[in-house]
Amino acid sequence: MADRANIAFSGSPIERADHIRVDDDALAAQMNWRARVLRLDGLNPVFDDSGALEWGTLADVPETAELCFLGLLDGKACFAPVPDEGATGPAYANPQIWSAMQALQPGELATYGGARSLVDWHARHRFCARCGGPTKLAKGGWQRNCSSCDAQHFPRTDPVTIMLVEHEGRLLLGRQPRFPPRMYSALAGFVEPGETIEEAVAREIWEEAGVRARDVQYVASQPWPFPSQLMIGCYSVTDDPELTIDTTELDDARWFTREELEAARAAGDRGTDDLIFPRSFVIAHHLVTWWLDR
Amino acid sequence: MADRANIAFSGSPIERADHIRVDDDALAAQMNWRARVLRLDGLNPVFDDSGALEWGTLADVPETAELCFLGLLDGKACFAPVPDEGATGPAYANPQIWSAMQALQPGELATYGGARSLVDWHARHRFCARCGGPTKLAKGGWQRNCSSCDAQHFPRTDPVTIMLVEHEGRLLLGRQPRFPPRMYSALAGFVEPGETIEEAVAREIWEEAGVRARDVQYVASQPWPFPSQLMIGCYSVTDDPELTIDTTELDDARWFTREELEAARAAGDRGTDDLIFPRSFVIAHHLVTWWLDR
Repeated sequence: MADRANIAFSGSPIERADHIRVDDDALAAQMNWRARVLRLDGLNPVFDDSGALEWGTLADVPETAELCFLGLLDGKACFAPVPDEGATGPAYANPQIWSAMQALQPGELATYGGARSLVDWHARHRFCARCGGPTKLAKGGWQRNCSSCDAQHFPRTDPVTIMLVEHEGRLLLGRQPRFPPRMYSALAGFVEPGETIEEAVAREIWEEAGVRARDVQYVASQPWPFPSQLMIGCYSVTDDPELTIDTTELDDARWFTREELEAARAAGDRGTDDLIFPRSFVIAHHLVTWWLDR
Repeated sequence: MADRANIAFSGSPIERADHIRVDDDALAAQMNWRARVLRLDGLNPVFDDSGALEWGTLADVPETAELCFLGLLDGKACFAPVPDEGATGPAYANPQIWSAMQALQPGELATYGGARSLVDWHARHRFCARCGGPTKLAKGGWQRNCSSCDAQHFPRTDPVTIMLVEHEGRLLLGRQPRFPPRMYSALAGFVEPGETIEEAVAREIWEEAGVRARDVQYVASQPWPFPSQLMIGCYSVTDDPELTIDTTELDDARWFTREELEAARAAGDRGTDDLIFPRSFVIAHHLVTWWLDR
């Protein structure tokens, strides 16, 4: 089994307290002087002097601010404000995000990631996809209601499969054009309407690498907050290693031996001459580690 | 391992042909006299004389119709038209859906389910959630583009965990208020931003039944097209069977012995005096069957 306890963006200590979200009176009672409000710079985290996430109080936010109820921590209600604008560019290019992933304690990173996905969704859903009318935050931020038609909208999480493929002791990894040189990772793709996890894995490997995968096995999952994916990590096997790479998606894909992967892992962030091992905060890191260590 | 080959709504014979979606010329070339267009009555299936899904040609649909490219079947392009209106009521109350689930061959049911989710999403996303402007179908129905701002929107699939909980040889099942009398099924709930599959399973069981689950294990998944969920079926264990039922979600939840479950399965659709076994087209059926037979 993968070491699921150390997967980045999981393990938030906040209790989601669903029963409060759905009860207007209970939610109002939580909006008191003890409540904590996550400080955000747009969608980016703000750090306090100790390098932890910074929290303020309800007095710090305008009365008109839309607030999401994240849940309870040490008996105190935790909120996050919806920013004026949602995510516009890719998060991986943002230095504040990189420093957060490297600096924050695991539980705090999970709290930040979950809050970010939620408030970003609100910022990008101020209108009703059904009728175009304005929407309003409801249920403590776990719903938006259309003011024109009666449509209800809910925060979105997109399931994505990310997979290892093995052929006779070697693993298939690929690189996207945006990756730094020598960095390879597991192939991945969104689960589409009408397919199982296993079907999505097989389709992605076929589309991206021209390889037929069998015996798909679930390994571990990760919430990924850029903007809001559920990464479903799997392992599979192929009988024929011949690659036909989809060059619109991938720069390259190759088979790596156990020795190459072990060497890259041991080399840390700088990698070997051939390979930089997937970073510790991505689930591909856990998948390859699981495969090497099992 | 669960018998994944027989999970309803999976196993469509249509090849999704992603490379055609993203290539305007290739897509236009497929819109010829050989192309097949799925007949739908709103979102409901239409059957031909043999009880299979009925297909027409491009000549049957208005030139202004929005069409989704489902993929290739026997070398022919398959399309489905976006209906005027998306899903409004719950599908489980619709007799045409029930008869489709019972009558269609597995591959055809999967084709219908995937097409339904996709065209329903289009019908409910004619406007941009970011700016309220009108949107237009793009990429053969795998995207919508806003005509006012530059936002791109993609078909939505919601990951849902559905789980068995075992305590000393008994399984926890619950019933929603809308279920027929004596019908119990596995507990379930949406995966939220910021949590893993395992965290979502533990949270749902805690919220709905007041039980702490451990050792969550993935069993099987199912695409569920009402409107578009990815059901992620899991198994878990608890050490303390005392229940605190969330009566806003559940009518009842109870522990069932192996003998009770075996008897209900053997009794078929009519069930025993205590229990109707989950229907064959829901993943709960496969989860409980997997548990009984392993």
